[in-house]
Amino acid sequence: MVRGRICRLSVRDVRFPTSLGGHGSDAMHTDPDYSAVYVVIETDAEDGIKGCGITFTLGKGTEVVVCAVNALAHHVLDKDLKDIVGDFRGFYRQLTSDGQLRWIGPEKGVVHLATAAVLNAVWDLWAKQEGKPVWKLLVDMDPRMLVSCIDFRYITDVLTEEDALEILQKGQVGKKEREKQMLAQGYPAYTTSCAWLGYSDDTLKQLCAQALKDGWTRFKVKVGADLQDDVRRCQIIRDMIGPEKTLALIPLGIGIATGEQCHNRVIFKQLLQAKALQFLQIDSCRLGSVNENLSVLLMAKKFEIPVCPHAGGVGLCELVQHLIIFDYISVSASLKNRMCEYVDHLHEHFEYPVMIQRASYMPPKDPGYSTEMKEESVKKHQYPDGEVWKKLLAAQEN
Amino acid sequence: MVRGRICRLSVRDVRFPTSLGGHGSDAMHTDPDYSAVYVVIETDAEDGIKGCGITFTLGKGTEVVVCAVNALAHHVLDKDLKDIVGDFRGFYRQLTSDGQLRWIGPEKGVVHLATAAVLNAVWDLWAKQEGKPVWKLLVDMDPRMLVSCIDFRYITDVLTEEDALEILQKGQVGKKEREKQMLAQGYPAYTTSCAWLGYSDDTLKQLCAQALKDGWTRFKVKVGADLQDDVRRCQIIRDMIGPEKTLALIPLGIGIATGEQCHNRVIFKQLLQAKALQFLQIDSCRLGSVNENLSVLLMAKKFEIPVCPHAGGVGLCELVQHLIIFDYISVSASLKNRMCEYVDHLHEHFEYPVMIQRASYMPPKDPGYSTEMKEESVKKHQYPDGEVWKKLLAAQEN
Repeated sequence: MVRGRICRLSVRDVRFPTSLGGHGSDAMHTDPDYSAVYVVIETDAEDGIKGCGITFTLGKGTEVVVCAVNALAHHVLDKDLKDIVGDFRGFYRQLTSDGQLRWIGPEKGVVHLATAAVLNAVWDLWAKQEGKPVWKLLVDMDPRMLVSCIDFRYITDVLTEEDALEILQKGQVGKKEREKQMLAQGYPAYTTSCAWLGYSDDTLKQLCAQALKDGWTRFKVKVGADLQDDVRRCQIIRDMIGPEKTLALIPLGIGIATGEQCHNRVIFKQLLQAKALQFLQIDSCRLGSVNENLSVLLMAKKFEIPVCPHAGGVGLCELVQHLIIFDYISVSASLKNRMCEYVDHLHEHFEYPVMIQRASYMPPKDPGYSTEMKEESVKKHQYPDGEVWKKLLAAQEN
Repeated sequence: MVRGRICRLSVRDVRFPTSLGGHGSDAMHTDPDYSAVYVVIETDAEDGIKGCGITFTLGKGTEVVVCAVNALAHHVLDKDLKDIVGDFRGFYRQLTSDGQLRWIGPEKGVVHLATAAVLNAVWDLWAKQEGKPVWKLLVDMDPRMLVSCIDFRYITDVLTEEDALEILQKGQVGKKEREKQMLAQGYPAYTTSCAWLGYSDDTLKQLCAQALKDGWTRFKVKVGADLQDDVRRCQIIRDMIGPEKTLALIPLGIGIATGEQCHNRVIFKQLLQAKALQFLQIDSCRLGSVNENLSVLLMAKKFEIPVCPHAGGVGLCELVQHLIIFDYISVSASLKNRMCEYVDHLHEHFEYPVMIQRASYMPPKDPGYSTEMKEESVKKHQYPDGEVWKKLLAAQEN
């Protein structure tokens, strides 16, 4: 089914002026402009299918990652998609081990975020060609093929290829039932939309009331800048949601949940080895796309640590839902102590936005990785020449 | 003495086609083009003094770091040098905690290499204004002032401000004698120039013979691609240098020497805590300039681990000599099991190249951080428009 040679790669700097409203603000990021490095790859196949990949960034950081994508582009261009996915581990290594780029990484920060954007586009293209959403492509994939996508370098002390295969083969049992369950009920979510650090009390109350009306039962509050202020804000929310619902400072309230900042599988391995986390938060863009996330999901399974993905930003919800739904169906087979972050921002800019029902992520049905953005949105928000930024920058100058 | 407001920052992509000769090649980097992101800052003071900063990169990676320097530039422009060095810790934090850039770092990879280039330029400017080489500026600096340059975030579990001050105050004893000793004898070095992985046996023999003639007694061989080949190459060198001289696969042959890839002080802290290294290799450009290297030198002292700096590349010898000479005079007060790497490449492009005598680094006497490059060299090697690259790129196309 896989077809075509990649003949074009374009990359754009897309920014949303979220800092104007305090959305996404926390103790370390006081003026975040949610942004995306948006990569589109095209093939010479006649189907006209494009692969769209994003990586999440914050404002000014985007221009640096765009530059890194351009530096990686020659690895992708003129490659047959068949050859890429036929030796996906090899291709992953080629990108992450580029002799002239690994010095400024490797597998971390700017170059790894760029790698994620490129590989997310490859996964979107692959899944679209197969006519399946990425979660379903993964669920239907032979365990040996899944394992061939993973680079096990530096993690074989806790997860070998054989370990991975064994986990995936065990995961085949009951898979059909779990897939049905997901399609009917979705994957449980919690919301972070109500209580960003920069919100006024009025905004907080209003958003909280709306979220309750929408059926949310699990709420996260951003804290960490000022203790007294944190206590006051938590009190407001607890008063509104009542004693039964979940109020999370970190998800689930007890134990350390971390991972959104972990820059590769090796850091996750070390945290797991050190028993330093109780809830593991993968990020679909900080790690090297589906390939590296697979290795982390499998390590989490081996250590019996629940995965509670990081999401929000631009497009992170769209992407990570595929990973966590696959995780439930084919790897963890459990929903105990698990939930996926949800933030109600910027979904309107995507062609295939997430669908939340009864506070759960409903499995996407459209082919691909849900990464495709509306061309009109991209044009409007391109930095600095899009309409939105032209106006803002002109206003700043006056 | 410190004066002027920074009114201009320029950054250039300077590459040397070292991959053509196999210089710098090792198991992970088969085609390195030694490169530098070269930053020059100018003030409005009438003295015309410029601060020059470099960070070491490899070929294509340079363009990404250049982009990151441009993204950081607004933190430096229109600042008084007096305000920067008067609250150097604050300024360091401002650069490393930029709310829109830390997501793509923080304090690692591309953004941290860019931070190093900018801060190296600030140190060069400061030292030139004071009329001293950086090592001497540091040696003469009041311990309280030194400590005020360091960001102790995330390392106070092993090194507090008070610990640092105590170490530096103890280091005052015998300082004058050690300074005299350095000026007379220099700091012991070892050479990596003879045995890069990509060299032919003939080249290896020829360079080894020349190094012996130049008085070298300590030699490092790059290994790791193929065991049989490594054994053969080591045999060739041992036969040439005889049984008495030092042949290092990693410096000093026994124990783990590491650090050139450690991306910040926190990683060094963790390796020290885990007793995972026996020789600590700081890098003057991967860490956040003098500021962050100071914290690592002090932690190494606390753990009694000898520092054996990483050098080579472009300009790393020029920079790191200042740090290790300061370390001996004011911190470690010991030469036991210590030596500094030396590689005989590309020094001719610097205004104030290192001076090696009797296999030792002789303390620089010119004011500044020895970071200033010859304008002619920069022009020739700018990528892709310099004369050298124009020719190479044209030849590639034919």
